[in-house]
Amino acid sequence: MTLYLEDFKVGDTHEFPGRYTFTREAIIAFAREYDPQPFHVDEDSAARSIYGGLIASGWQTASVTFRLAVDGLIGRAASLGSPGVDELRWLEPVRPGDTVKVRAELLEVRNSQSKPDRGIVKIRYETSNQRGDVVFTMVGPGLFARRPPAATRS
Amino acid sequence: MTLYLEDFKVGDTHEFPGRYTFTREAIIAFAREYDPQPFHVDEDSAARSIYGGLIASGWQTASVTFRLAVDGLIGRAASLGSPGVDELRWLEPVRPGDTVKVRAELLEVRNSQSKPDRGIVKIRYETSNQRGDVVFTMVGPGLFARRPPAATRS
Repeated sequence: MTLYLEDFKVGDTHEFPGRYTFTREAIIAFAREYDPQPFHVDEDSAARSIYGGLIASGWQTASVTFRLAVDGLIGRAASLGSPGVDELRWLEPVRPGDTVKVRAELLEVRNSQSKPDRGIVKIRYETSNQRGDVVFTMVGPGLFARRPPAATRS
Repeated sequence: MTLYLEDFKVGDTHEFPGRYTFTREAIIAFAREYDPQPFHVDEDSAARSIYGGLIASGWQTASVTFRLAVDGLIGRAASLGSPGVDELRWLEPVRPGDTVKVRAELLEVRNSQSKPDRGIVKIRYETSNQRGDVVFTMVGPGLFARRPPAATRS
Protein backbone atom coordinates (compact mmCIF):
# COMPACT_ATOMS: atom_id res chain seq x y z
CA MET A 1 0.00 0.00 0.00
CA THR A 2 1.41 3.36 -0.99
CA LEU A 3 1.73 5.94 1.80
CA TYR A 4 0.44 9.42 0.98
CA LEU A 5 0.81 12.71 2.81
CA GLU A 6 -2.30 11.90 4.86
CA ASP A 7 -0.53 8.87 6.33
CA PHE A 8 2.19 10.93 8.02
CA LYS A 9 1.51 12.33 11.51
CA VAL A 10 3.63 14.79 13.47
CA GLY A 11 5.44 13.03 16.28
CA ASP A 12 5.43 9.62 14.61
CA THR A 13 8.75 7.84 14.87
CA HIS A 14 10.09 5.07 12.67
CA GLU A 15 12.91 2.72 13.58
CA PHE A 16 13.94 1.41 10.19
CA PRO A 17 14.76 -2.31 10.18
CA GLY A 18 17.64 -1.99 7.70
CA ARG A 19 21.29 -2.18 8.70
CA TYR A 20 24.38 -1.12 6.76
CA THR A 21 27.90 -2.26 7.56
CA PHE A 22 30.69 0.01 6.38
CA THR A 23 33.38 -2.23 4.97
CA ARG A 24 36.91 -0.92 4.47
CA GLU A 25 36.47 -1.54 0.74
CA ALA A 26 33.20 0.42 0.49
CA ILE A 27 34.63 3.33 2.52
CA ILE A 28 37.64 3.59 0.24
CA ALA A 29 35.63 3.09 -2.97
CA PHE A 30 33.16 5.84 -2.09
CA ALA A 31 35.88 8.23 -1.02
CA ARG A 32 38.03 7.66 -4.10
CA GLU A 33 35.08 8.74 -6.21
CA TYR A 34 33.63 11.55 -4.11
CA ASP A 35 35.85 12.57 -1.18
CA PRO A 36 39.50 11.60 -1.70
CA GLN A 37 40.88 13.14 1.48
CA PRO A 38 43.75 11.11 3.01
CA PHE A 39 41.85 10.04 6.12
CA HIS A 40 39.12 8.53 3.89
CA VAL A 41 41.25 6.72 1.31
CA ASP A 42 44.63 5.86 2.81
CA GLU A 43 45.05 3.78 5.95
CA ASP A 44 48.58 4.98 6.74
CA SER A 45 47.69 8.66 6.37
CA ALA A 46 44.50 8.04 8.32
CA ALA A 47 46.45 6.45 11.18
CA ARG A 48 48.55 9.61 11.47
CA SER A 49 45.54 11.96 11.21
CA ILE A 50 43.50 13.38 14.08
CA TYR A 51 41.09 10.48 13.51
CA GLY A 52 43.69 7.80 14.27
CA GLY A 53 42.48 5.55 11.47
CA LEU A 54 40.33 5.30 8.38
CA ILE A 55 36.90 6.93 8.63
CA ALA A 56 34.00 7.03 6.18
CA SER A 57 33.29 10.17 4.19
CA GLY A 58 30.45 12.09 5.76
CA TRP A 59 28.77 12.04 2.36
CA GLN A 60 28.73 8.26 2.46
CA THR A 61 27.18 8.32 5.94
CA ALA A 62 24.52 10.76 4.70
CA SER A 63 23.87 8.63 1.62
CA VAL A 64 23.65 5.41 3.63
CA THR A 65 21.25 7.11 6.04
CA PHE A 66 19.04 8.03 3.14
CA ARG A 67 19.24 4.53 1.66
CA LEU A 68 17.96 3.03 4.91
CA ALA A 69 15.19 5.66 4.90
CA VAL A 70 14.20 4.78 1.33
CA ASP A 71 14.12 1.07 2.23
CA GLY A 72 12.21 1.67 5.45
CA LEU A 73 9.73 4.38 4.56
CA ILE A 74 10.24 6.65 1.58
CA GLY A 75 10.26 3.82 -0.95
CA ARG A 76 6.75 2.83 0.21
CA ALA A 77 5.48 6.40 -0.01
CA ALA A 78 4.39 8.61 -2.90
CA SER A 79 7.67 10.51 -2.68
CA LEU A 80 8.20 13.41 -5.06
CA GLY A 81 11.77 14.16 -4.02
CA SER A 82 13.07 16.93 -1.80
CA PRO A 83 13.96 20.60 -2.16
CA GLY A 84 16.80 20.38 0.34
CA VAL A 85 18.15 19.20 3.66
CA ASP A 86 19.50 21.03 6.70
CA GLU A 87 21.63 20.51 9.74
CA LEU A 88 23.76 17.60 8.62
CA ARG A 89 25.89 16.83 11.68
CA TRP A 90 28.68 14.28 11.72
CA LEU A 91 28.88 13.61 15.45
CA GLU A 92 31.20 10.61 15.63
CA PRO A 93 33.53 9.01 13.10
CA VAL A 94 32.25 5.94 11.25
CA ARG A 95 34.97 3.29 10.91
CA PRO A 96 35.41 0.03 9.00
CA GLY A 97 33.20 -2.66 10.52
CA ASP A 98 30.69 -0.24 12.02
CA THR A 99 27.05 -1.18 11.42
CA VAL A 100 24.48 1.59 11.47
CA LYS A 101 20.73 1.87 11.72
CA VAL A 102 18.43 4.86 11.29
CA ARG A 103 15.57 6.32 13.26
CA ALA A 104 13.26 8.99 11.86
CA GLU A 105 10.94 11.41 13.64
CA LEU A 106 8.27 13.43 11.82
CA LEU A 107 8.62 17.06 12.90
CA GLU A 108 6.06 18.72 10.65
CA VAL A 109 3.39 17.73 8.10
CA ARG A 110 1.71 20.36 5.96
CA ASN A 111 0.06 20.92 2.59
CA SER A 112 1.97 22.72 -0.12
CA GLN A 113 0.89 26.35 -0.42
CA SER A 114 1.40 26.42 -4.19
CA LYS A 115 0.62 22.86 -5.33
CA PRO A 116 -2.60 21.30 -3.99
CA ASP A 117 -1.64 17.77 -5.04
CA ARG A 118 1.25 17.49 -2.58
CA GLY A 119 2.59 18.38 0.83
CA ILE A 120 5.75 18.57 2.85
CA VAL A 121 6.91 16.31 5.65
CA LYS A 122 9.85 17.52 7.70
CA ILE A 123 11.80 14.55 9.00
CA ARG A 124 14.67 14.34 11.49
CA TYR A 125 16.97 11.39 10.81
CA GLU A 126 19.27 9.94 13.46
CA THR A 127 21.90 7.36 12.57
CA SER A 128 23.52 5.27 15.28
CA ASN A 129 26.16 2.57 15.36
CA GLN A 130 26.27 -0.89 16.93
CA ARG A 131 27.31 0.62 20.29
CA GLY A 132 24.31 2.95 20.33
CA ASP A 133 26.39 6.08 19.64
CA VAL A 134 24.57 8.59 17.45
CA VAL A 135 27.01 9.20 14.60
CA PHE A 136 24.93 11.43 12.32
CA THR A 137 21.76 13.51 12.24
CA MET A 138 20.01 15.60 9.63
CA VAL A 139 16.67 17.37 9.16
CA GLY A 140 14.98 17.49 5.82
CA PRO A 141 11.68 18.15 4.15
CA GLY A 142 10.36 15.53 1.77
CA LEU A 143 7.62 16.15 -0.79
CA PHE A 144 4.82 13.60 -0.84
CA ALA A 145 1.70 13.36 -2.97
CA ARG A 146 -1.67 13.75 -1.29
CA ARG A 147 -4.00 10.79 -1.70
CA PRO A 148 -5.89 11.31 -4.96
CA PRO A 149 -9.64 10.74 -4.24
CA ALA A 150 -10.22 8.86 -7.48
CA ALA A 151 -7.15 6.71 -7.10
CA THR A 152 -7.83 4.96 -3.83
CA ARG A 153 -8.74 1.81 -5.76
CA SER A 154 -6.29 2.16 -8.63
CA MET B 1 52.25 24.16 -0.89
CA THR B 2 49.74 23.24 1.78
CA LEU B 3 47.10 25.85 2.54
CA TYR B 4 46.51 26.58 6.22
CA LEU B 5 43.78 28.51 7.99
CA GLU B 6 45.81 31.71 7.57
CA ASP B 7 45.57 31.36 3.79
CA PHE B 8 41.78 31.69 3.74
CA LYS B 9 40.25 35.18 3.58
CA VAL B 10 36.59 36.12 3.96
CA GLY B 11 35.14 37.12 0.62
CA ASP B 12 37.61 35.08 -1.44
CA THR B 13 35.95 33.14 -4.22
CA HIS B 14 37.25 30.08 -6.02
CA GLU B 15 36.05 28.83 -9.38
CA PHE B 16 37.24 25.25 -9.33
CA PRO B 17 38.62 24.05 -12.66
CA GLY B 18 37.18 20.54 -12.39
CA ARG B 19 34.14 19.35 -14.32
CA TYR B 20 31.95 16.32 -13.75
CA THR B 21 29.59 14.84 -16.33
CA PHE B 22 26.70 12.81 -14.98
CA THR B 23 26.38 9.77 -17.20
CA ARG B 24 23.19 7.73 -17.21
CA GLU B 25 25.22 4.78 -15.93
CA ALA B 26 26.73 6.71 -13.01
CA ILE B 27 23.35 8.18 -12.03
CA ILE B 28 21.75 4.73 -11.91
CA ALA B 29 24.73 3.09 -10.18
CA PHE B 30 24.81 5.69 -7.40
CA ALA B 31 21.05 5.58 -6.91
CA ARG B 32 20.87 1.77 -6.82
CA GLU B 33 23.31 1.85 -3.92
CA TYR B 34 22.12 4.89 -1.99
CA ASP B 35 18.81 6.32 -3.26
CA PRO B 36 16.75 3.73 -5.18
CA GLN B 37 13.71 5.91 -5.83
CA PRO B 38 12.07 5.20 -9.23
CA PHE B 39 12.96 8.57 -10.78
CA HIS B 40 16.64 7.91 -10.01
CA VAL B 41 16.94 4.29 -11.15
CA ASP B 42 14.30 3.52 -13.77
CA GLU B 43 13.93 5.45 -17.00
CA ASP B 44 10.33 4.46 -17.67
CA SER B 45 9.15 5.36 -14.17
CA ALA B 46 11.19 8.55 -14.36
CA ALA B 47 9.52 9.53 -17.64
CA ARG B 48 6.11 9.26 -15.96
CA SER B 49 7.21 11.13 -12.82
CA ILE B 50 6.94 14.86 -12.15
CA TYR B 51 10.55 15.11 -13.39
CA GLY B 52 9.73 13.80 -16.88
CA GLY B 53 12.90 11.72 -17.04
CA LEU B 54 15.80 10.31 -15.09
CA ILE B 55 17.44 12.68 -12.59
CA ALA B 56 20.48 12.26 -10.37
CA SER B 57 20.06 11.62 -6.66
CA GLY B 58 20.59 14.81 -4.74
CA TRP B 59 23.15 12.93 -2.65
CA GLN B 60 25.17 12.28 -5.77
CA THR B 61 25.03 15.98 -6.67
CA ALA B 62 26.19 16.89 -3.17
CA SER B 63 28.97 14.29 -3.29
CA VAL B 64 30.13 15.42 -6.75
CA THR B 65 30.15 19.02 -5.53
CA PHE B 66 32.39 18.02 -2.69
CA ARG B 67 34.66 16.01 -4.97
CA LEU B 68 35.24 19.06 -7.15
CA ALA B 69 35.93 21.09 -4.00
CA VAL B 70 38.47 18.52 -2.76
CA ASP B 71 40.19 18.56 -6.16
CA GLY B 72 40.13 22.34 -6.40
CA LEU B 73 40.87 23.48 -2.86
CA ILE B 74 40.35 21.23 0.12
CA GLY B 75 42.82 18.60 -1.09
CA ARG B 76 45.57 21.24 -1.12
CA ALA B 77 44.68 22.45 2.35
CA ALA B 78 45.39 21.11 5.83
CA SER B 79 41.79 19.89 6.08
CA LEU B 80 40.70 18.24 9.31
CA GLY B 81 37.20 17.31 8.14
CA SER B 82 33.93 18.97 8.96
CA PRO B 83 31.42 18.89 11.81
CA GLY B 84 28.47 19.39 9.49
CA VAL B 85 26.85 21.14 6.56
CA ASP B 86 23.72 23.25 6.24
CA GLU B 87 21.26 24.49 3.68
CA LEU B 88 21.65 21.84 0.99
CA ARG B 89 19.31 23.04 -1.76
CA TRP B 90 18.56 21.08 -4.90
CA LEU B 91 17.40 23.89 -7.16
CA GLU B 92 17.18 22.21 -10.56
CA PRO B 93 17.21 18.57 -11.62
CA VAL B 94 20.53 17.13 -12.84
CA ARG B 95 20.00 14.88 -15.86
CA PRO B 96 22.14 12.42 -17.86
CA GLY B 97 24.69 14.33 -19.90
CA ASP B 98 24.75 17.39 -17.65
CA THR B 99 28.22 18.68 -16.83
CA VAL B 100 28.66 20.65 -13.63
CA LYS B 101 31.26 22.93 -12.14
CA VAL B 102 31.55 24.40 -8.65
CA ARG B 103 32.21 27.85 -7.26
CA ALA B 104 33.04 28.50 -3.62
CA GLU B 105 32.83 31.67 -1.57
CA LEU B 106 34.42 32.02 1.86
CA LEU B 107 31.81 33.43 4.24
CA GLU B 108 33.68 33.30 7.52
CA VAL B 109 37.16 32.45 8.81
CA ARG B 110 37.83 32.13 12.54
CA ASN B 111 40.00 30.37 15.08
CA SER B 112 38.58 27.48 17.04
CA GLN B 113 37.58 28.53 20.57
CA SER B 114 38.52 25.19 22.08
CA LYS B 115 41.45 23.97 19.94
CA PRO B 116 44.22 26.48 19.26
CA ASP B 117 45.79 24.40 16.48
CA ARG B 118 42.86 24.80 14.10
CA GLY B 119 40.11 27.06 12.83
CA ILE B 120 36.86 27.05 10.96
CA VAL B 121 36.19 28.27 7.43
CA LYS B 122 32.54 28.61 6.45
CA ILE B 123 32.20 28.03 2.72
CA ARG B 124 29.21 28.47 0.41
CA TYR B 125 29.31 26.10 -2.56
CA GLU B 126 27.38 26.73 -5.74
CA THR B 127 27.11 24.07 -8.43
CA SER B 128 26.00 25.01 -11.94
CA ASN B 129 25.43 23.11 -15.16
CA GLN B 130 26.64 23.66 -18.72
CA ARG B 131 23.81 26.15 -19.35
CA GLY B 132 24.79 28.25 -16.35
CA ASP B 133 21.80 27.20 -14.24
CA VAL B 134 22.62 26.87 -10.57
CA VAL B 135 21.49 23.35 -9.70
CA PHE B 136 22.71 23.03 -6.10
CA THR B 137 24.02 25.09 -3.20
CA MET B 138 25.18 24.32 0.31
CA VAL B 139 26.92 26.08 3.18
CA GLY B 140 29.37 24.28 5.37
CA PRO B 141 32.12 24.82 7.86
CA GLY B 142 35.41 23.07 7.25
CA LEU B 143 38.09 22.57 9.87
CA PHE B 144 41.60 23.54 8.83
CA ALA B 145 44.89 23.42 10.73
CA ARG B 146 46.62 26.70 11.56
CA ARG B 147 50.11 27.05 10.16
CA PRO B 148 52.50 25.51 12.70
CA PRO B 149 55.34 28.03 13.30
CA ALA B 150 58.00 25.30 13.39
CA ALA B 151 56.69 23.54 10.32
CA THR B 152 57.01 26.25 7.71
CA ARG B 153 60.10 24.53 6.32
CA SER B 154 59.11 20.94 6.98
